[in-house]
Amino acid sequence: MTVRIKNVAIIGLGLLGGSLGMALRKSSYHRLGWARRGEVRKWALENDVIDESCDDIKDLLAKADLTVLCLPIPQIMEYIETFAECWRPGTVVSDIGSVKEVVVNCGEKFLIPRGVAFVGGHPMAGTEKSGPEAAFEKLYANAEVFITATRNTSAEALGSVRKFWETVGTKVVEIPVREHDILVAHTSHISHIVALALTEAVLDCDPETRALRYSGCATGFRDTSRITSSSPSMWREIIENNQPAILEVVREFEKRYEKLGRLIENKEYDSLEAEFAKGKELRDAWIEYKTR
Amino acid sequence: MTVRIKNVAIIGLGLLGGSLGMALRKSSYHRLGWARRGEVRKWALENDVIDESCDDIKDLLAKADLTVLCLPIPQIMEYIETFAECWRPGTVVSDIGSVKEVVVNCGEKFLIPRGVAFVGGHPMAGTEKSGPEAAFEKLYANAEVFITATRNTSAEALGSVRKFWETVGTKVVEIPVREHDILVAHTSHISHIVALALTEAVLDCDPETRALRYSGCATGFRDTSRITSSSPSMWREIIENNQPAILEVVREFEKRYEKLGRLIENKEYDSLEAEFAKGKELRDAWIEYKTR
Repeated sequence: MTVRIKNVAIIGLGLLGGSLGMALRKSSYHRLGWARRGEVRKWALENDVIDESCDDIKDLLAKADLTVLCLPIPQIMEYIETFAECWRPGTVVSDIGSVKEVVVNCGEKFLIPRGVAFVGGHPMAGTEKSGPEAAFEKLYANAEVFITATRNTSAEALGSVRKFWETVGTKVVEIPVREHDILVAHTSHISHIVALALTEAVLDCDPETRALRYSGCATGFRDTSRITSSSPSMWREIIENNQPAILEVVREFEKRYEKLGRLIENKEYDSLEAEFAKGKELRDAWIEYKTR
Repeated sequence: MTVRIKNVAIIGLGLLGGSLGMALRKSSYHRLGWARRGEVRKWALENDVIDESCDDIKDLLAKADLTVLCLPIPQIMEYIETFAECWRPGTVVSDIGSVKEVVVNCGEKFLIPRGVAFVGGHPMAGTEKSGPEAAFEKLYANAEVFITATRNTSAEALGSVRKFWETVGTKVVEIPVREHDILVAHTSHISHIVALALTEAVLDCDPETRALRYSGCATGFRDTSRITSSSPSMWREIIENNQPAILEVVREFEKRYEKLGRLIENKEYDSLEAEFAKGKELRDAWIEYKTR
């Protein structure tokens, strides 16, 4: 049996959590919010990011009908274990972590025995920035959000989490846990490895050469490398917790890249142009899907 | 001896040429403009992109004090050869091509014997779109532009081209021809190969998988893959005309990427995080340089 969702606790008020509070400003949810640093809790209360806070996270979790853990992956799992006894039976816990299998396993292990539901969530939203100062109201507008169900997930808990995410303007996509992790290895995680290698190939050189390269880097490099400016610890943690799926896509990219390298080496320019045409068609079709 | 530059002929009125005409609206130059298609010439006259046009390119080139060839690389070279006799001695020809050695060699070969100067140019400006409809006034604002001098380049001609580019708000960087081609292989050309391989690794799969991947692709993929939507023929031509330098950077990226793949395979996450931190530092420093 699930309780009616009125009090939503946002734990962590950085880019993801802070933006979530802002996106809920006009909703009927009562926004509880907590961050480790008191000054961030103060900022969130003063800027209508949350409605209520308190010094002790335990008091807040006890009031929550739905809790969304907006923390780095290791902390999501740490908080679930540490505070498992704080949540009332019948309430729902969710998260925003970029990998789901390790998190959902942890959530079900510690919460199900206590009658608390765990539904994994992963909004496909973010920027290369982090922290409360990077939060903005429209972060989630039109983004897609994955929510995961397992054989242990009740339809009611799933429905509550779905409704919550629809309230902030995201499009909800239900997906099994394993399938999610393989999917985002392709659509998100690999990009960070590729962008990093590119940034290093372009800028990791002696200072004199680098100064010249600065002049040659324009909007193409700016966008292709943008996510290299993301949090190093966050991406280490994501890769650490999704290693087998990511390694598979690392090989897939390698195969594609090596083929292009061979075409260039062998001066097979007709075939190279055909690859560029295929890539353009694939991306333009995705852009059309996103903007329709 | 160089003539005073009053009449500037923009040949080709696509993204680069059209934007150039727009950027010159408030300048003291008289803008001659020509495009292959009559309807584009009409559009350019009606929208204050150019001041004057005519059906026969030869008549226009004869009037030009400075000509900027805003065409694909093969056409830049074709037009130089075909119309070499149209330019008046003492006038200057330049271009916007992304590679310089082949173009400058061609320009000097056909124009110097006729007393016409050739100064290679390459503005680091563009988007993934092309054609007159993609042109906009601010394309060149704050962009850097490379201009190349050889032992055959007069200080006067170089000065005229420098002044021209300063007029549209670009920062002029003088660079030797070979050095330019190696530089942009790093700062621009490699990005297009990397973005293409990424797009293929993510979206070149069976339609059912692709439909699901569409949901998982968000702003990270959007930006990292953006330049995959560029003109396939243009990028074939750029790579074809800068193959040795590009092949060298293809290997450089490969080395960086393989190292990251090894760290992930061996679960050396501390080292991986250090690489992410290095990449972030390198890119953030460049962003600071660009925005200061």
